[in-house]
Amino acid sequence: MTPGRMIDHAGEWLRGEGPESDVVISSRIRLARNLAGFPFVNRTNTRQKHAILAACRERVTQRRIAENAVWIGIDDADALDRQLLVERHLISRPFANPKNSLPRGVALGADETFAIMVNEEDHLRVQVLRSGMQLSEAFDQIGRIDDVLEEDLDFAYSRRFGYLTACPTNAGTGIRVSVMLHLPALKLTGEIDKVKRAARELHLAVRGMFGEGSDAHGDLYQVSNQTTLGKTEEEILGDFQKTVVPQIIAYENQARQLLVKQREAQLDDRIWRAWGLLTSARVMGTEEVLQLLSHVRLGVNLGRLATVDIRTVNELFLLTQPAHLQKLTGEPMEPAERRVARAKMLRQRLKAS
Amino acid sequence: MTPGRMIDHAGEWLRGEGPESDVVISSRIRLARNLAGFPFVNRTNTRQKHAILAACRERVTQRRIAENAVWIGIDDADALDRQLLVERHLISRPFANPKNSLPRGVALGADETFAIMVNEEDHLRVQVLRSGMQLSEAFDQIGRIDDVLEEDLDFAYSRRFGYLTACPTNAGTGIRVSVMLHLPALKLTGEIDKVKRAARELHLAVRGMFGEGSDAHGDLYQVSNQTTLGKTEEEILGDFQKTVVPQIIAYENQARQLLVKQREAQLDDRIWRAWGLLTSARVMGTEEVLQLLSHVRLGVNLGRLATVDIRTVNELFLLTQPAHLQKLTGEPMEPAERRVARAKMLRQRLKAS
Repeated sequence: MTPGRMIDHAGEWLRGEGPESDVVISSRIRLARNLAGFPFVNRTNTRQKHAILAACRERVTQRRIAENAVWIGIDDADALDRQLLVERHLISRPFANPKNSLPRGVALGADETFAIMVNEEDHLRVQVLRSGMQLSEAFDQIGRIDDVLEEDLDFAYSRRFGYLTACPTNAGTGIRVSVMLHLPALKLTGEIDKVKRAARELHLAVRGMFGEGSDAHGDLYQVSNQTTLGKTEEEILGDFQKTVVPQIIAYENQARQLLVKQREAQLDDRIWRAWGLLTSARVMGTEEVLQLLSHVRLGVNLGRLATVDIRTVNELFLLTQPAHLQKLTGEPMEPAERRVARAKMLRQRLKAS
Repeated sequence: MTPGRMIDHAGEWLRGEGPESDVVISSRIRLARNLAGFPFVNRTNTRQKHAILAACRERVTQRRIAENAVWIGIDDADALDRQLLVERHLISRPFANPKNSLPRGVALGADETFAIMVNEEDHLRVQVLRSGMQLSEAFDQIGRIDDVLEEDLDFAYSRRFGYLTACPTNAGTGIRVSVMLHLPALKLTGEIDKVKRAARELHLAVRGMFGEGSDAHGDLYQVSNQTTLGKTEEEILGDFQKTVVPQIIAYENQARQLLVKQREAQLDDRIWRAWGLLTSARVMGTEEVLQLLSHVRLGVNLGRLATVDIRTVNELFLLTQPAHLQKLTGEPMEPAERRVARAKMLRQRLKAS
């Protein structure tokens, strides 16, 4: 499989049908694992990296993990394919960096619910990604993958610290739990800052899903745990799943109801203006498209706009990204050309929907 | 006739079909006349004003001027009706002012090509207003009206100064010639300031058609002569018609072609975004609607948008104004309600067109 074949649809995690999918776009769990007997990746030489890759490649694509897993050699992939995988949240940005020419690759489930990077910051980074609020399902799935891998591979483990990782913040369980949340109402009412402060006090990281820095383009926020040491996996997951996420969902839903009740005309105006621009513009940048899609998504979720379904909107968050856009149109483009192509694609997909 | 009956269409001058109507919305000529034997209006008492009105009312509505002229007593009209007439450019804003309770009125042609105000700044203000570049036709029409009036009424006239008027700047011919121009491309390219400077050097006044101050909402500019003394009517008209206006039209058309050639995608983007917002927004203010209509009008004129005709766009410049909007919906509304009603009316009229 080449990444190019993925382009005209989104993975399972953008299906938009999971529980609480009005607010929770997707649930993600990631484990960090390292092979005993090898230095951490940043301490290895090329020969050792090849050895790690050789030890892992067959293991991570085996049938017991998934029926139709595929292997993509990142050092062989072209720049656009790498960027495509980053946009789909299947590999990390540093892993895709073309300056990094060392042997590395990723195993992907055909439905993109899992991705296992070999020779990223750790020897193995296992990720499970599912649509909506499915942390328990993701936890079960990643547990099964971890069990299979552990049968075949000898992981670096300390009785005192737990799993050993290149960066101490990942040591212990090596687990990172996160959800991608769509919080347009908290953004519109200005309450998002309160939520961010509260999350920081709970030692959670809140960052924008798209775009660098603190700005969350498209009102999409990733909330994740920051510490993995001193708690069991179950405790980390439990706090997150039973307290933090439901609370943020409740705040967002309150804010949505407030907007409907107190600022109905302004709310509808935002939603429909976004629709008008998405279906009419001839030039469209990445930041703007995310903001407009966010407002349309809010409109669909609140039943105030029925001209499109959630799946189409979710997919457009992805398909309007630069690499996807270029893959879809079949040619590399300059930014100015991309803005024109993006506007055209939006009109086509939204008029047809 | 009450002004309310005019509301759901525009007068002849917004028909959008006259010569050069891509750029020239309308042509207007105005004459100032005063009755001999009465002081100017600002020096009259109420009794004298009644006498002037009595002397003029029958004359200005007589058949020889027009078949179906109507008389509207402005001191009796309600505030919304007065505002409606101001928005249609049939009476002046001071004339409509409710604080002015003195006897006054206006004779209107059924097609709104002429309006004769009695007891405005001068005893008589005669205006002819026609769509497109029709200054010669307007000049002929106003000449005929003036001739008829002069047969019955004794106008204050001096061999030395010509017609005498309340304000010296109107004395002489008492004529003011103006065109309403749509100059969106000169605005977009920033060259409008050059045109304004050049016009000022030719002793012409350039001002926005809608809105106070120097801003021209909707890119609609009124260009008019400032001096009426020392030139014949024919000279004033000739300069204006053969030199000034054709030059501005040529500049605007050059700017339009430049935009098509050098900034095609950006131009289409503006045009189509305007269309998207006009047909989608749920809240719409007066300034914004004029700007968006301006860009749509440019799009229609350049053949880049064919989802609406010019007449509908021209009419919407008028029908979205506050008094028209309230008359159309049949009830007085607060500004916030008007913004919602305006957006609704736009969607209805543009989807149906």
